[in-house]
Order: sequence, then C-alpha cells, then structure tokens
Amino acid sequence: MKDTAKDAGQDAGAAGREPAGPLGVAVVGAGYWGPNLVRNFQSSPEFRLRWLCDLDEDRARKVLGGYSTVQATSDYAAVLADPAVDAVAVATPAGTHLDVALAALRAGKHVLVEKPLAATYEDGLRLVNEAEERGLTLMCDHTYCYTPAVGRIREMVRSGELGDIQFFDSVRINLGLVQKDVDVLWDLAPHDLSVLDFILPDHVRPVAVAAHGADPIGAGQSCVAYLTLQLNNGAIAHVHVNWLSPTKVRTTMVGGSKRTLVWDDLNPTQRVAVFDRGVDLTAPQEIGADERRDMLVSYRSGDMVAPALGEKEALRSMVEEFSGAIRNGRPALTDGRAGLQVLDILEAASRSLEFRGAVVGLRTGR
Amino acid sequence: MKDTAKDAGQDAGAAGREPAGPLGVAVVGAGYWGPNLVRNFQSSPEFRLRWLCDLDEDRARKVLGGYSTVQATSDYAAVLADPAVDAVAVATPAGTHLDVALAALRAGKHVLVEKPLAATYEDGLRLVNEAEERGLTLMCDHTYCYTPAVGRIREMVRSGELGDIQFFDSVRINLGLVQKDVDVLWDLAPHDLSVLDFILPDHVRPVAVAAHGADPIGAGQSCVAYLTLQLNNGAIAHVHVNWLSPTKVRTTMVGGSKRTLVWDDLNPTQRVAVFDRGVDLTAPQEIGADERRDMLVSYRSGDMVAPALGEKEALRSMVEEFSGAIRNGRPALTDGRAGLQVLDILEAASRSLEFRGAVVGLRTGR
Amino acid sequence: MKDTAKDAGQDAGAAGREPAGPLGVAVVGAGYWGPNLVRNFQSSPEFRLRWLCDLDEDRARKVLGGYSTVQATSDYAAVLADPAVDAVAVATPAGTHLDVALAALRAGKHVLVEKPLAATYEDGLRLVNEAEERGLTLMCDHTYCYTPAVGRIREMVRSGELGDIQFFDSVRINLGLVQKDVDVLWDLAPHDLSVLDFILPDHVRPVAVAAHGADPIGAGQSCVAYLTLQLNNGAIAHVHVNWLSPTKVRTTMVGGSKRTLVWDDLNPTQRVAVFDRGVDLTAPQEIGADERRDMLVSYRSGDMVAPALGEKEALRSMVEEFSGAIRNGRPALTDGRAGLQVLDILEAASRSLEFRGAVVGLRTGR
Amino acid sequence: MKDTAKDAGQDAGAAGREPAGPLGVAVVGAGYWGPNLVRNFQSSPEFRLRWLCDLDEDRARKVLGGYSTVQATSDYAAVLADPAVDAVAVATPAGTHLDVALAALRAGKHVLVEKPLAATYEDGLRLVNEAEERGLTLMCDHTYCYTPAVGRIREMVRSGELGDIQFFDSVRINLGLVQKDVDVLWDLAPHDLSVLDFILPDHVRPVAVAAHGADPIGAGQSCVAYLTLQLNNGAIAHVHVNWLSPTKVRTTMVGGSKRTLVWDDLNPTQRVAVFDRGVDLTAPQEIGADERRDMLVSYRSGDMVAPALGEKEALRSMVEEFSGAIRNGRPALTDGRAGLQVLDILEAASRSLEFRGAVVGLRTGR
Repeated sequence: MKDTAKDAGQDAGAAGREPAGPLGVAVVGAGYWGPNLVRNFQSSPEFRLRWLCDLDEDRARKVLGGYSTVQATSDYAAVLADPAVDAVAVATPAGTHLDVALAALRAGKHVLVEKPLAATYEDGLRLVNEAEERGLTLMCDHTYCYTPAVGRIREMVRSGELGDIQFFDSVRINLGLVQKDVDVLWDLAPHDLSVLDFILPDHVRPVAVAAHGADPIGAGQSCVAYLTLQLNNGAIAHVHVNWLSPTKVRTTMVGGSKRTLVWDDLNPTQRVAVFDRGVDLTAPQEIGADERRDMLVSYRSGDMVAPALGEKEALRSMVEEFSGAIRNGRPALTDGRAGLQVLDILEAASRSLEFRGAVVGLRTGR
Repeated sequence: MKDTAKDAGQDAGAAGREPAGPLGVAVVGAGYWGPNLVRNFQSSPEFRLRWLCDLDEDRARKVLGGYSTVQATSDYAAVLADPAVDAVAVATPAGTHLDVALAALRAGKHVLVEKPLAATYEDGLRLVNEAEERGLTLMCDHTYCYTPAVGRIREMVRSGELGDIQFFDSVRINLGLVQKDVDVLWDLAPHDLSVLDFILPDHVRPVAVAAHGADPIGAGQSCVAYLTLQLNNGAIAHVHVNWLSPTKVRTTMVGGSKRTLVWDDLNPTQRVAVFDRGVDLTAPQEIGADERRDMLVSYRSGDMVAPALGEKEALRSMVEEFSGAIRNGRPALTDGRAGLQVLDILEAASRSLEFRGAVVGLRTGR
Repeated sequence: MKDTAKDAGQDAGAAGREPAGPLGVAVVGAGYWGPNLVRNFQSSPEFRLRWLCDLDEDRARKVLGGYSTVQATSDYAAVLADPAVDAVAVATPAGTHLDVALAALRAGKHVLVEKPLAATYEDGLRLVNEAEERGLTLMCDHTYCYTPAVGRIREMVRSGELGDIQFFDSVRINLGLVQKDVDVLWDLAPHDLSVLDFILPDHVRPVAVAAHGADPIGAGQSCVAYLTLQLNNGAIAHVHVNWLSPTKVRTTMVGGSKRTLVWDDLNPTQRVAVFDRGVDLTAPQEIGADERRDMLVSYRSGDMVAPALGEKEALRSMVEEFSGAIRNGRPALTDGRAGLQVLDILEAASRSLEFRGAVVGLRTGR
Repeated sequence: MKDTAKDAGQDAGAAGREPAGPLGVAVVGAGYWGPNLVRNFQSSPEFRLRWLCDLDEDRARKVLGGYSTVQATSDYAAVLADPAVDAVAVATPAGTHLDVALAALRAGKHVLVEKPLAATYEDGLRLVNEAEERGLTLMCDHTYCYTPAVGRIREMVRSGELGDIQFFDSVRINLGLVQKDVDVLWDLAPHDLSVLDFILPDHVRPVAVAAHGADPIGAGQSCVAYLTLQLNNGAIAHVHVNWLSPTKVRTTMVGGSKRTLVWDDLNPTQRVAVFDRGVDLTAPQEIGADERRDMLVSYRSGDMVAPALGEKEALRSMVEEFSGAIRNGRPALTDGRAGLQVLDILEAASRSLEFRGAVVGLRTGR
C-alpha cells in the first residue's frame, strides 16, 4: 500500500475497463455480516446486487426477505459464471476466504473480503499476488477505517497535527461469543490493528509484537489478551481485547507530541476528543539525553476540542471506496496489503502467545 | 501477612502496652503527602500530633499554618528522643524510607510508611524484620485499600460473591509529573498492585510478571508501561500506567466466574458496579477440556447493581487502622509484608522491562 | 383506554374476522417516518406490505428502492379500493391525519396513525368515534411506549414497585428542525406525554397544565417550552422541550415513594437505573400534616439496580401490537383514546402559552 | 450593583482606611457552612481569624479542633467589641441574618453573609442601606460565582462570545435534607439565581417569574419546584430544584445566538463545554417577522470546545474578593445588591407558588 494510493481519495482518471452503469455484485455468505453488505450494496447507486449466495439457500432467501428481486442461490459456480457479476463480496468464515476469493479472482471478478483477509499470512499473500497479477481489485472490509471518526483521526495523525506519535492504546472489550476456532485476538484485534495501520504515517510502522493471554474459563483458547507493539520510532502500541467483560468498551487513545486524541466509539455525542495538552521536556533537543533527563519538566494544559463529524455510515463509504478502486484501477484505501499487515501481526502475536509473551519480529517491517 | 491477620478487623484483645489516651505521633516529610497525614492525624481522637519534621523547617511551619500548636522542626533526632512520640509517619522520598524508618524502629517507635515501603525489596525486608524482632507495628500507607469502594470489593471477592477470579484489569493514567528518579511503574503501579494484593483471596497469588514500557519523550525512563501478571489459578492481571495521557482514567475491572465488577474511582455517583452477567460454558466440569471446547457456549445476561457505599475518607480509615494495629499488637491490614509483595512485583517488572518483556518469576509465590 | 384493554398483553381469543395469513397493509406518506414503517411491516410475518402511497410517487418509489416488489403509487383511492389491504398506516403531516385516516376507516380499513393522532382534539375524537362505531382498530404510533425500557418502567410503576408516584420529569432537547407549522411543544412533547399516559396507574391522571415558552430566535413559534402538569394525587409532572440545544438529552425521571428511576435513552449500557433510595418522613401516616411537618426526616440510602433489558426494536413491537389488536378485536395498548389524552394536554398547553402560563384544566380528568 | 463595580476586578487604588496587615475577621456560626469559612480565612494571608462564635461554644471549639490558637466563644458582643476584628462573616440560619449582620455593621465591621442575604427582601434592603450609609462592605457569599467555571462563563457571556442570550436552563437536584422552615426553592435556587445574576450582561434582566411546586411527601412545603423567568430581551430562564432525586444533577445550559454552553459541575474533566452550533434563521434581519417565519431554516454544526479551567477553590477566591472590596472601598462582585436581586426573585416565586403559577413581576426590573 503506497502512500499515493492511500491518499488517492478522489478518483481522477477512470481506468475505463469497467461498465459506465452500476457494477454487478454478488455477496457470498448470509451469516452475521452478509446482510449488512446486502443492505449497503442495495442502497448504493454504484452497484447492482445480483446474487446472495450461501451454502444454505434458505438462509440466503430469508436474508433477502419476501419483497426482493435479488436472486438467492447456493450455487457459487453459477454466480461466478454470470457475466453480469463484476465483483464478489466475501462474508464467509475466515477459513474459507482463500478458496472463495481465489475462485472469484480466477473468474476475473474484483473481490471484497471481510476481515481478516485470510486464515494465514501465506493464504493472504496468495490472494494479493493473484489479484495483482490479474490487475483486479482486492479490498479488505476494514469497516472501522471508513467511519467519519477514523477518517478524521487519520487526517490529524498524517498531517502532523498531533505531532510525533508517542503511544496508541486501544481497548475493545465486551461480553463476546466465545468461538470454537478463533481466539479473542483473531476475533477482535483485527479492528484495532487495521485502524492502527490506517492512521499511521507511512514512515512509522510496527516492528515487533508481544502478546499475553489467558483462558480462565477453559474455553480452549485465549478469551482475554493483551498485545504490545513496538513501533520503529520508539512509540508503543497496545491492544486489549476481552470476551469476558460485561461492559462494552471501545476506546482508542492516540498520543502525540503536540496533541493527544481519544476516540470513544460508544459516545455518539463526542466520539473524538482532541486534547491540546501534553507533557513536554523544556530542554532543547540539541542537548544530550542525560542532560535532558536532569532538567525540569514543564506541563502544558490547554483546551479540548471535539470536532464535528459527519454521520455517514461506514459501510456506505466502504462500498463507495470499493467502486472507486474498481473503476479507477487503483488500490483501495484498505487493500489486500493492508489486510496482510494485519495478518502479519496476528500471526506474530499467536507465536508470542505460545512462547509466553516473547517478543516476535514482524515480516512487514516496512 | 496471614489471613487471620488480614481479617482481624475487630481488635479483640488489646496488647496493653500502649497508652490509654491518644498516641503521640510525628509526621516526617512536609512535601506532597505529608500535609494529608497532618490533617488526618489532627482530626483523629486516637492520635495527638506532636511534631511535623522536615529538613526544611520553614516548609514544615508553612504546612502547619499560622494557627497551629503543633511543633515544626528539622531535628529528627529530637523527635525520636521525645518520649511522648509513640509513632512516626514517614512521608519522605522513597530512597530515604530505609534510613528514616529504621531509625524510628530502633528508637522503639511504631512506623507508618508512605508507599512504596522502600526503594528495594532488600530494604523493605530489613524494615519488616526489624519491626518483627522488636514487636513494633510497621504499616504501609496503601491509601486506596482504605476507600469504601475497595473495602467492599475485597469483601465481595473474598466471600466468593464474584466466584473464581478470572481477570483483573487496572488503568491508571493521567498527565503526570515526569520524575527524575522513578519511572511510571514505580510511581503509579503501587496503587494497583496494593489493591490487587488486598482484595485477592489468600490462595490466589501472582506468580510471574512481564512488563513493557516506552519512553517516547526521551525522559530517561518509561513514561508508559503495561504490566501483565500471571496468577497461580490461571487468571491474568494487567496494569496500564501512563504519565502522558491528557485524560485521567482510574478504572479497575475484576472479572469473576459469577459476577464481574467495575470500579471507577472518578465516578462518584457509581464507583462500583457489579454485573450479574458473564460467560459460562454449559458443559459440566467433569468432562475434559477438549470436549468442553467443542460445546456450545451459553451467555448469561442479568442486572447490574451499584451498591451504596459510605463516604468515609480513606486516610481517616487508614489512620484508625494504624492505631488499631498499634493498640492491639496485630498486623495492620496493609502491613510491611503487604508492602514487600508490592516491591517484589515492582522489582520483577523492572527486570522484565530491561529484558524487553521477558516473564520474570516472583519471590513471594506464596 | 380501559385498564383491561391496556393490560391485554396476550391476545387470548381471536376475533376471527381477520385473515389467517398476513394482513395486507399500505403505508401512506413516504417522508421522514414512512420508511421506518415500510421496513418494519416488511420484516413482520404478520403483515404483507401492498402499497407505499405518497402524493409524490417518485418519492415513494425512491423509498422502496430498486429491488422491491412493493407497489408505489400516488393514487390513494386505488389503495383504499384494494380488497387485499386490511390496514392503512398513516405517516403524513398531522394536518392531514383526519382526512386520510377517516377515508381509510370509511373504507373499512384498520388504521395506524403517527403521533399526534390529529391536529386537534376535536379531529381526534371524530376518528375515535368513527373507529369505535365501525368496530375497527385505531392505533397511535406512540413509538417510545414500545421500547423495552418503557415497557419495564410501566411494569414497575403499575405494579407498585416504585410506590406512589411523586414526580415525573422529562427532558427532550436537541438541535431540532425549526418547523413552520408546529411549535416545539407539538413537535416533541407528544413523546413524553404518551409515555406518561402509558406508565401511570389508571387512578393517577393529569388534571391541569401550565406552559411557558419562548421564541428567542424569532421563528414565529415557541422553540423552547416548559410544561407543568398537576396530577390528581398531588404529584407533579414536568416536560422540557427545546429545539435550540446543541446537546441531545433524553432523560426521564420517575420518582416514587419507594424507589425512583431514571430512564436515559441515550445511554445504551444503562438505559434504566432504579434507585433504592428516597426521602421518607419518619412520622406515621395517621398523624396530621402539621405534626408530620415538625418531625424529623429520615433518609434512606440504598443500592441502584440497572435491570437487564432486551434489545428488541420498538417499531417491531409496535407493529406486532397493531396486528394483535386487529386480529383480536381489542384496543391497542396505545389506542385512539391514548392519542386523545395527548391531544387534550397539548391543546391545554397551547392555551396556557397564550395566557402566559395560566393553569388550564384538562377535559379528560379521568 | 453597577457594571463598573462588577468589573472592578483589579483593585487599583486602595481606600487607605484599612490596616496594611491582615484584616481581623470573626466567623459567626459553627454549623454546616462555618467550618468552610474558618478553613479559608485561616489559609488566606489577607486575613487573621480572631474568633469563631456560636451560641453553642462547645460546637465552635469542636470545629476549631484541638490544635488551634483561634478563640471560640458564644459571646457575640465581645466579638463586636474587639477592635482587632475588622470584619464579620455570618454563617447562621437565614432568619437571623438581619440581626447578626445589622449588629456587626452598627459596630463598624465589614460583613460577609451566607446566601440568602436575608429572610426577606425588606430585611435585605435594610442591610444594604445600613452598609451604604456607613461606607462598609456588605458582601454575599454566592460561592458558585467564584468557581473558575462561572468566572469563565461570565466572561464569555458578557464579552458577546455567545451572542445574544436566548435561554438559561439550570437543574439542581439531589437527595436533600427536607427542611422545616424553608422550601426547596429558598434552599437551592439561590445558587442558580445568583449565577444567573452574575453572568448576565447588565442590559439583560429578569422581569417576571412563575413558579410551580409540589409537596408529594407531605413535608409541609415544596420539595420539587420549577421556576420560569422572563427576561427583558425575550429570553427565558428556567430553574429546576428537587430534594427528592436520588441522583445528583448540577447542570446549567446557557444558549446564545452564536454559541451555547453547558456547565456540568459534577464532571471535573469537562465542566464547561462550548458548542459552536446553533440554529439560525437564514433570513436577513431587515425583513419582517412574518417573512422570516416562512423562510427556510439553516443549521450550523460545528466543533465543541472544553476550555481549560484552573482548579482554584471557589471559597478562596471569594475570600480574596472580600478583602479586595474592603481594602479598596469598592462593591464586591457579589455585593448586597446582588443578594437583593436573588431575594426579589425568591419572594416573587413564593407568591407565584401561592397563586398556582401566576406570573409575578419583579421589583428590580433594572
């Protein structure tokens, strides 16, 4: 994911390969997430929803409801064979992402995949390579990146408004469904990690990970986990995920040398608060660390600003980005490589968990 | 700290050695914490404040104000020589605790020490041994343990009302004074660790620690730190301390198999909330972990109760406990051994920080 | 609205007049509220949505979207002539409710009307009478009454769990659309007044109203208003509505002699909090008021409980109630008479506003 | 209270009549409020506390504690006869204010009176006149006016930062001590009314009052009350006071044509929030009200700013203002006339309560 791609925002020149009218799209998977995609593709003028495909055709039919003209099917091959289908959105379990998405790419379809991109980094890489070779769009549905709040945070971080990033602390806890095949890290942390990847300036990257977890209820995998990331600029990032908390918390703090912001996704009247206060060493930067250490410390204390944010639904923006990327032949803001970055960290974290918290380096120390 | 001691609560038999009237007390240190001790000793009928001692006698005088009959002095020897002084309260920098407290014990005075008990585990142990040999009270001012909230939490945890402890998560962050000689861990975490020690049942103890920190502002020591503790029952405890946060957070969650509670010290109208919800595996406990893993999971969802708590000032209760321990010759609720437990964890955490998060075992794996 | 009707809850005996399959329904009005009704009728197995009717057929078509099999029309007569239409839901401006609903009733259709029931008490009464004479269901869409929170509050109040009702205080303020033809009282207060009517025990009723308002922006009608209601048991009810507040508040407090509850509709994690505290006169009830006045007052202070509430969408429950009322020939929980009660208060409040806050008696001093 | 006085802020020229050293002061009344005055006079370098006087000398002694050099007495005449006493602070029940304060003024002492200034407007006026005739300082302890929050709000309102004031809404509710001789209005509303008086620009004044109350517990006086004030610029002010609420709320909203602010005194991390949003009629001001009414309405939506506020204790600032007023011979920010304004409104409100909410005009329609 190159910076130019990331910031492409406006889609200047169209690639010209795609139909001028709405793009035909099929959603695969009528489980938890599929219905949200169905709803948003239906309300977008950029898409024409052709199919909802699920192994259980009845389930697909039920999701569409009794008033829909969209076709339900369990025949994925028929979907891929339909020339009116330009793109496929995959909302099946993570373990099937490789097969479902690969088949779509091989059928020449653009692909949107629910997070995580795939069950392993290796699988994810195969998808990325396949899409790049074929010149097709591969996009990850990192939904939170398309909320107005995260969009604004990215802007503030990358423009330097916050100063140098010093810490990132994210808490995502609630009473969760204890799952059979993924632990709490793979279930919840992709949200925080995709946001971290999304907002960081290009030159600041995580380089290593340590993870601690516990399974105090005997579920067979971690139900509580703490993830610590070292960044290449000396900053620290931390993610707390927990399925056992009776209260829901979704709070992310991004500390910068100039300002610090708090994103509280459960506080609709004040989702983002930017604090014009911070700690600063009075010492000039030229002198050595030892001298700085001895110097007095001064404190700034200033106003807090809660910027006005739009109310646009994240999935709607995500769907628009998907069409923009397809039509302009440019990487999506959350393209396959963004999905790979998340997988890299998740795999390293799993390895760290196995080795009781050992620090594990990342492959993508870009 | 034995259970019987910890729960001594009521002081049945008086030791008889102490004066029937108020205990004479001297406060040493007129800095940040000393004035609070002065105020609380003055308002307690159990004590008669004799001296406020500080290297800087003017500072002591200023703390006492222009209307006080208490004596200010910089002559610690004179304080110790005063037979009207039964007890000494130490509120000097941690590095001086050993000398100041040891001198007091050797002069036959009971001693109260501000947290942390000493600068090192070794120093703390010397104090504990000295006090035990002399039959004197050595108490740690773990103030938070004396709040009505923590008292109630201890009751709920130790009575089994919460069920088995599954996780403990504490966040203590704010814009803090970056200090020259201690890092954020030694500055803030003693509060959380003393509370953890205080509320846990006797058979549940931390056994190992890992710590991650960062100094993104070049202060010379960690300004952000994360501490993960393994408990001997498979539970996990975690402490997040941060000097760089513009918002103040003081929230501790204690997760149990029956109930989970949240203590938010900054929410006076609802400091403690007890949630009657949790995750539970439906499987009976007799069957193996593998089978349990495959079973369905059920969710409980119930009411939340915010118990009525008294409004008694913590320092007032602490001062009362000090007099109770002295008069009855019993260990204080937060005695020297409680202080040692905190030092054990802090030292292990410092070692872990040096080795980039390696897990370090505790001495006091009681 | 008789008590037996209000509590009918379960629909014991079916009236037998209605089709066994889904009820055919038409929605009239494709503006702000209509789409919500469309969505909920579509997802209810009890109904089959036949038409969406709007003077602007394009607007209706747009609301239905590009995938719907429902018919859009601007021909209301055709809708009423369709024998497959058993019921009509009216979501047009209040000024048109009388004509639209009356036509539907005269065509033998059951009718659901968005709040307020009509533009005047007189109009509302005509609708009620028409429906009663024809034995048709006339129901008001008092949506908040169908939230899980209000359902629970009603239960607690009417079962006596709260004790005698002492005060009701409701605040509904936000940056609102300043409207051309209704003031803030008619726009927002129907929500609070319908909830008040819904939760009160049958023997406790408002008897008089005073209203104060202001139009500090020169909008031509009150943009801020305060409504005070006297209840027949000496209690007081108060409603604060305001279009000019930049913050959104939706809080209702119901004070009882045993418990007091706070409903905060914007706090999803704790919508209802029940406080087991109250003020109580120690004096026995037998002695006279004068003596009671002189007696000391004691204070109770107890726990707070936030009961677990379901997450069912209010409109879904409302739609179910509509079908239940139709199929069983019983008054709906929020029937036409409930709508009349709200109109009675609104009209009296308008009169009070004209006379600078004079107290105005209600017709329905039941 | 003239504007020049109100804004005197800095005390340029000293009156020269007063001692250069600390002012001798006596506190009368050792009940609920007296101890706070004792503490603050003691810590102020501007004052020397000479006496604490109470009918019950033991109570006075107890308040001073066992370490104080201040004299306790029950002999008020001796206090007034002491030439070292320059000023008297009155913290006795409201019914005694006239006698206690008048005696002090006649003895040539400056006087500070706890709110309300006196039991009646008539009594208050006698005090004001007496002080003016003698050239003595008469000040009301309207404590909230000296909080950093209210100071900042006054600044914002009077500088025009908020635009024209459109509404003022204050809620002050909690479980209160039901009192024998004053109702909830006289007990709690003085706080809100003194703040209103303090922050309003000089040309904006309340002109009439209506009050509604209820005594649902048979206490003999209103325990819940609502006060509506008409201002001379068409704005509305409203105060809700309630002794029966189990939750404590202290929230004041000040709506202006440019900005609206919310002061939440119980939210220490965000006491004042200023919203850069409001409703505005797009119509230019030149055209008539009728045309404006028909025009579309536009909405602004902007950022929210929570200004940094100091943490200075209000009583400390109040005590400083008292000494400033005495030493400079200028009216205090909350002088006797400010106290009169509050009494005027309270008396009119009581009359309105008697007449079931009738609108009552104010004397001080300045």
